Amino acid sequence: MHNWHVYLSGEIHTDWRETIISRTEELNLPVTFSAPVTDHEASDDCGAVILGDESSKFWYDHKGAKVNAIRTRTLIETADIVVVRFGDKYKQWNAAFDAGYASALGKSLIVIHDPSLTHPLKEVDAAALAVAQTSEQVVDILKYVISGKLVR
Amino acid sequence: MHNWHVYLSGEIHTDWRETIISRTEELNLPVTFSAPVTDHEASDDCGAVILGDESSKFWYDHKGAKVNAIRTRTLIETADIVVVRFGDKYKQWNAAFDAGYASALGKSLIVIHDPSLTHPLKEVDAAALAVAQTSEQVVDILKYVISGKLVR
Amino acid sequence: MHNWHVYLSGEIHTDWRETIISRTEELNLPVTFSAPVTDHEASDDCGAVILGDESSKFWYDHKGAKVNAIRTRTLIETADIVVVRFGDKYKQWNAAFDAGYASALGKSLIVIHDPSLTHPLKEVDAAALAVAQTSEQVVDILKYVISGKLVR
Amino acid sequence: MHNWHVYLSGEIHTDWRETIISRTEELNLPVTFSAPVTDHEASDDCGAVILGDESSKFWYDHKGAKVNAIRTRTLIETADIVVVRFGDKYKQWNAAFDAGYASALGKSLIVIHDPSLTHPLKEVDAAALAVAQTSEQVVDILKYVISGKLVR
Amino acid sequence: MHNWHVYLSGEIHTDWRETIISRTEELNLPVTFSAPVTDHEASDDCGAVILGDESSKFWYDHKGAKVNAIRTRTLIETADIVVVRFGDKYKQWNAAFDAGYASALGKSLIVIHDPSLTHPLKEVDAAALAVAQTSEQVVDILKYVISGKLVR
Amino acid sequence: MHNWHVYLSGEIHTDWRETIISRTEELNLPVTFSAPVTDHEASDDCGAVILGDESSKFWYDHKGAKVNAIRTRTLIETADIVVVRFGDKYKQWNAAFDAGYASALGKSLIVIHDPSLTHPLKEVDAAALAVAQTSEQVVDILKYVISGKLVR
Amino acid sequence: MHNWHVYLSGEIHTDWRETIISRTEELNLPVTFSAPVTDHEASDDCGAVILGDESSKFWYDHKGAKVNAIRTRTLIETADIVVVRFGDKYKQWNAAFDAGYASALGKSLIVIHDPSLTHPLKEVDAAALAVAQTSEQVVDILKYVISGKLVR
Amino acid sequence: MHNWHVYLSGEIHTDWRETIISRTEELNLPVTFSAPVTDHEASDDCGAVILGDESSKFWYDHKGAKVNAIRTRTLIETADIVVVRFGDKYKQWNAAFDAGYASALGKSLIVIHDPSLTHPLKEVDAAALAVAQTSEQVVDILKYVISGKLVR
Repeated sequence: MHNWHVYLSGEIHTDWRETIISRTEELNLPVTFSAPVTDHEASDDCGAVILGDESSKFWYDHKGAKVNAIRTRTLIETADIVVVRFGDKYKQWNAAFDAGYASALGKSLIVIHDPSLTHPLKEVDAAALAVAQTSEQVVDILKYVISGKLVR
Repeated sequence: MHNWHVYLSGEIHTDWRETIISRTEELNLPVTFSAPVTDHEASDDCGAVILGDESSKFWYDHKGAKVNAIRTRTLIETADIVVVRFGDKYKQWNAAFDAGYASALGKSLIVIHDPSLTHPLKEVDAAALAVAQTSEQVVDILKYVISGKLVR
Repeated sequence: MHNWHVYLSGEIHTDWRETIISRTEELNLPVTFSAPVTDHEASDDCGAVILGDESSKFWYDHKGAKVNAIRTRTLIETADIVVVRFGDKYKQWNAAFDAGYASALGKSLIVIHDPSLTHPLKEVDAAALAVAQTSEQVVDILKYVISGKLVR
Repeated sequence: MHNWHVYLSGEIHTDWRETIISRTEELNLPVTFSAPVTDHEASDDCGAVILGDESSKFWYDHKGAKVNAIRTRTLIETADIVVVRFGDKYKQWNAAFDAGYASALGKSLIVIHDPSLTHPLKEVDAAALAVAQTSEQVVDILKYVISGKLVR
Repeated sequence: MHNWHVYLSGEIHTDWRETIISRTEELNLPVTFSAPVTDHEASDDCGAVILGDESSKFWYDHKGAKVNAIRTRTLIETADIVVVRFGDKYKQWNAAFDAGYASALGKSLIVIHDPSLTHPLKEVDAAALAVAQTSEQVVDILKYVISGKLVR
Repeated sequence: MHNWHVYLSGEIHTDWRETIISRTEELNLPVTFSAPVTDHEASDDCGAVILGDESSKFWYDHKGAKVNAIRTRTLIETADIVVVRFGDKYKQWNAAFDAGYASALGKSLIVIHDPSLTHPLKEVDAAALAVAQTSEQVVDILKYVISGKLVR
Repeated sequence: MHNWHVYLSGEIHTDWRETIISRTEELNLPVTFSAPVTDHEASDDCGAVILGDESSKFWYDHKGAKVNAIRTRTLIETADIVVVRFGDKYKQWNAAFDAGYASALGKSLIVIHDPSLTHPLKEVDAAALAVAQTSEQVVDILKYVISGKLVR
Repeated sequence: MHNWHVYLSGEIHTDWRETIISRTEELNLPVTFSAPVTDHEASDDCGAVILGDESSKFWYDHKGAKVNAIRTRTLIETADIVVVRFGDKYKQWNAAFDAGYASALGKSLIVIHDPSLTHPLKEVDAAALAVAQTSEQVVDILKYVISGKLVR
């Protein structure tokens, strides 16, 4: 049976990833999950901490963003499905960037967001194979897509 | 030894997949099979059931077809061989779509159909490496292609 | 300005291609159209007429379908947009095959069909960027997409 | 001499595109520019106007976003350079999506934004070959990259 | 209208290329032909003459074959159709190599050979979209494929 | 440690494959070998035996060659290294076809042949990363390339 | 969890690879390392020793370089991350070649070099996602990228 | 006739490009040449001059190298042939990087260097289809490859 690789991109301030992962494990589905580094401070500082401090904010961010890209690009490229969640805070341009990147690679894209964000996310939704509102729906999709079982 | 991935597309109202799978297992061939969801009603309703109902028939179908595409696109892309069976009922445009999709990806295509369908399927057959009439022939092809043994 | 290549696949028994082509020309849009051979008899007989007759119907059709594929594959691969029209007659599996082929190549897919065909075409529609009912709508899409002008 | 294709993505409420295009024309550089439809209302309504109205806001937006994608995907794919400008209004997730899409296709990415946006755009900037603040800088880059002349 | 690029590979001791080219020109078809260097001695000696003589026969041949590859690889890659003719003399492994190379790139392959060579060429023929016996048949194919006109 | 996939193409009338495989196994190298069906009669007859007899020699061969292609294309595509041996009998165009196919896919190509065949094989050799004369040399290459140990 | 493949290219006269490998093993990270043959003499002589001596220095080197390419190309292509270290001796054009090769394949590139080499390596650094000075920094990057843990 | 695109990479302190270009023009060959910016100071300073100065040498070089990459990557990708010349001065890692980049993209690579550099350039030469010592030889190759005429 195919082992599915699912990358969970986007919002890092709620526990939506844990919900998806734990419920999927309860269902014993053959899924390997991956995600960006979700420790916000580590993600911001990794470049400067590992490779040397920077006085300029631009280069401080730049170094960190590139180190993070080593992780995110590789894991998105190995994914079958990329799930991107947009929350109600922050600009989240990296989430939209990941959605575009995944889309150009032909990955199956699932987007999660509140209906209030439908208009600004319409281009992202248009590239998706599913637009969900909750983590539970994503689990239901994984269950159905992998096992063929639809719980009504 | 190479483990072969074989995707079984097309007709969902007869047991042709089971015939291929069970006989291949009896032969102990290193094959992993995959297929679309063959529960017709689940396949029709999955989008609306999981992601929310739709009053318009078009969008009801659209949501479901996209959720199913998460499964079918991924599994066709991981396949070495795509087998597509055309039966005598329904329009089966999704089967022909899968054949075209698999062909553009350079997959080895095997088509199964009754000789009475030769003319309307000529473009699909022209893209195939084998045109069979029965599930048994597909098993014979898998046996020969994988083990190199030809039973006369 | 980008010169757009549009391939018109599918139904060959009505004048839908001429409608699209003549109205697009009237609009002076930078579009080059291409299409399969729409002379049904030539399309059926080309293999046997050029390369030698065949006593078997299967190989007669096979030779012709492959000669036609020289044209269709090349022109689909050079297209930016592939328009596929499904009519109310014939099995039209070659149209669905072309849609799958174009989709796997990442072409922008526009499908034209009557609403009565929505259910059997749902997988094809799900891969499309637009589902139209008339040739006029396709011209409107080309006009909007290329010139940016939307006529209300 | 190579004719350069430059796609101008992002912000549609200021005249930054006109600045780049007119100054590049003054320099007689061999550049063909393209861009999304920048008439905001046309861009929102194109799907429903051409293909039929929708009562649901989600599908109304969805149809429009897909029609727009016919234009944007094709033009991004033909571009050598994709310039993405982020302004100070709106969520602009489509701009970030385009940046990700272009990046995965290996296009040369130039980003324009105010330094105040450095932190939320760090992942996008990390994928870029140049991060500019003004349209004039983009013209200077085009001039230098194409003609090899650097004005100090 | 699409301008077709046709590469004529294989046998260099008869005038089959001239036949195809002159008849195609008479028909005013939009075709650009290309071919390997057909001056046998120049083809053998080009490496050593241009880049310096070699005492070893192996390296003498090697240098020449690589210089020729600059031409052949580039022109095969730009071709829509690759025609390969096998004659009755010499081993012609380079012709079969070109056929394999073209096939892996997804080019439309047309093979020309005498029926007496059917058995040893069966793998090459299996990858072709047309198997012809004469240059005239290739011209007929080009005429039909490009213009859609079938002369009976 | 990387597990190497090596496809052994070409001559089927000597035991050169067994020599390579058995010596590689003695060295405990992490290599998976694959090859075409080397039972000459099975290879010729597989199409007609499995899918139905053909009265025409051309189609008899054609069916068989296509069934064999299901095996050979898949295994060449999964290979890291493709070894092609040319013997002193038969036309062996399928071996040269495989070499061209592998080369276009960017596989590492190793050719084995007697020095007497250097001139007609110069184009094939020019695409190879090693030109050997014996199976033992191929084993030495595998040993060196995989383990880094060079026995002098 | 994703198993990471890391290719260690460049300088072969210090023990920088051992430092990275042993420290990564101590951290129990899921990484498979690969590298070119680092036995300088074996690397120089492999072609001539295995495939036969050459009187010309050029072809002696050529044969060896191609045999080594069987290893290096395959392993770079299977890598997620390519680390290239430039030391203070030798011309190291093969290291820069590997960096270019990896970059065109879209691999995540990490470069290690002393700050004194910043200017001549600026084009290589510009293609990298991280520029380190020590092996320890590379281990820190691997640790962070794979485990998400940042040690300050 | 195919118009050939030739990119001239490497050494920027002698007039080897002008020699190739002027002699090719005299021969009226259909070749479009391109090259990196060969004004050394402009190439070093372009990033800082256009996008703003940098106090750190590393980022000063980094900005410039990325702006230059907009030109070099695009032009290498559109080239049929990439010629790389190594001189006797400087480290020239960017030349070797370009050679690796071009090689991974499957471009035809021609290397020019003095025989004294054979050993350190052996990996680069191994990826090339021709290794020349002079600009005249490159012109002779272009003449032969494009026109098929070999001057002895």
